[in-house]
Amino acid sequence: MAALDQLIDALRKLPGVGPKSAQRMAYHLLQHDRLGAQQLAAGLTEALARIQTCTRCHSFAEAPVCAVCSDGTRDPALLAVVETPADQAVLERSGSYRGYYFVLGGRVSPIEGRGPKDIGAEALLHRATDGLVREVILATSFTAEGEATAYLLGEALKAQGLKVSRLARGVPVGSELEFVDLGTLAHALADRR
Amino acid sequence: MAALDQLIDALRKLPGVGPKSAQRMAYHLLQHDRLGAQQLAAGLTEALARIQTCTRCHSFAEAPVCAVCSDGTRDPALLAVVETPADQAVLERSGSYRGYYFVLGGRVSPIEGRGPKDIGAEALLHRATDGLVREVILATSFTAEGEATAYLLGEALKAQGLKVSRLARGVPVGSELEFVDLGTLAHALADRR
Ligand SMILES: [Zn+2]
Ligand SMILES: [Zn+2]
Repeated sequence: MAALDQLIDALRKLPGVGPKSAQRMAYHLLQHDRLGAQQLAAGLTEALARIQTCTRCHSFAEAPVCAVCSDGTRDPALLAVVETPADQAVLERSGSYRGYYFVLGGRVSPIEGRGPKDIGAEALLHRATDGLVREVILATSFTAEGEATAYLLGEALKAQGLKVSRLARGVPVGSELEFVDLGTLAHALADRR
Repeated sequence: MAALDQLIDALRKLPGVGPKSAQRMAYHLLQHDRLGAQQLAAGLTEALARIQTCTRCHSFAEAPVCAVCSDGTRDPALLAVVETPADQAVLERSGSYRGYYFVLGGRVSPIEGRGPKDIGAEALLHRATDGLVREVILATSFTAEGEATAYLLGEALKAQGLKVSRLARGVPVGSELEFVDLGTLAHALADRR
């Protein structure tokens, strides 16, 4: 059945979904949750139409400039650099950061051939040298690639006369920022080095 | 962000997807695979529009009557009864069955308060007493609920003078039909009791 096979193929685009799960999902939706399938289709279409990339911080935004970047009450001297919009969201939810953000396009990876240029280093340097930013907090992951990213960006930022810090080692080494609990993150922010 | 939260909620409708996975999926699609998100939305919409329930066997169909039920070269004396469209698909793929099918709405469950009426026993009796069907193969799961379903339906079908069989015990006890390998299924069909 062409429509069924196409749906199964499309479900496999989801991260962590193999052929068996995709089939199970498709059958489940069509047999038991057609309303859910409809809501998912609408949710995807709506999100694609409304969510864009903030021109200032490169996070998700429902306008050309996101709500955080548009918030004039924040400290313009602080800029936190993260790998993904998800990392930005979790740092924001920790409630202990009042500066602005810059979202990279991931992290450098020699294996996958991704250098500083590929993750937006130039745009970061441009953003960080606006005359207001004094300290850049490199909140990349504490993985080998995240550390390498922080090192490379840190050197470039220091060369511009900026203060560069890193989240404190309260964050468990080897883990993804996105999955760290909020209390640990709050401590790591306070102890940034 | 409303559109993002709605997408995450919608992704949680998928079986086996919790809040963390749903968030990861939403961020992944929006950041790295917008085309995939578009294809998934289209696949869902297309499947919902095109896939309906076959009026004859109650499996999935792209027309009022499905391709299998419309196939006049099959043996009208044989009717296989399965729990789901997925089970029907896997039996069909085994390549060793040339009769028709009847798809139940699951299986009886005392715990969930589902009796024979709730899974379509009346429609099955109606279908099986068309004057052409001679043998009904009860291909429900070899779980306690699947066995109870086969027992209850078998008694009702025998009362109508029909021959009733069950897949041979080649199917591993306690397992879902959908996940059985095709060779085992072919043997189980040949040895039906
Ligand atoms: Zn922004
Ligand atoms: Zn049919």
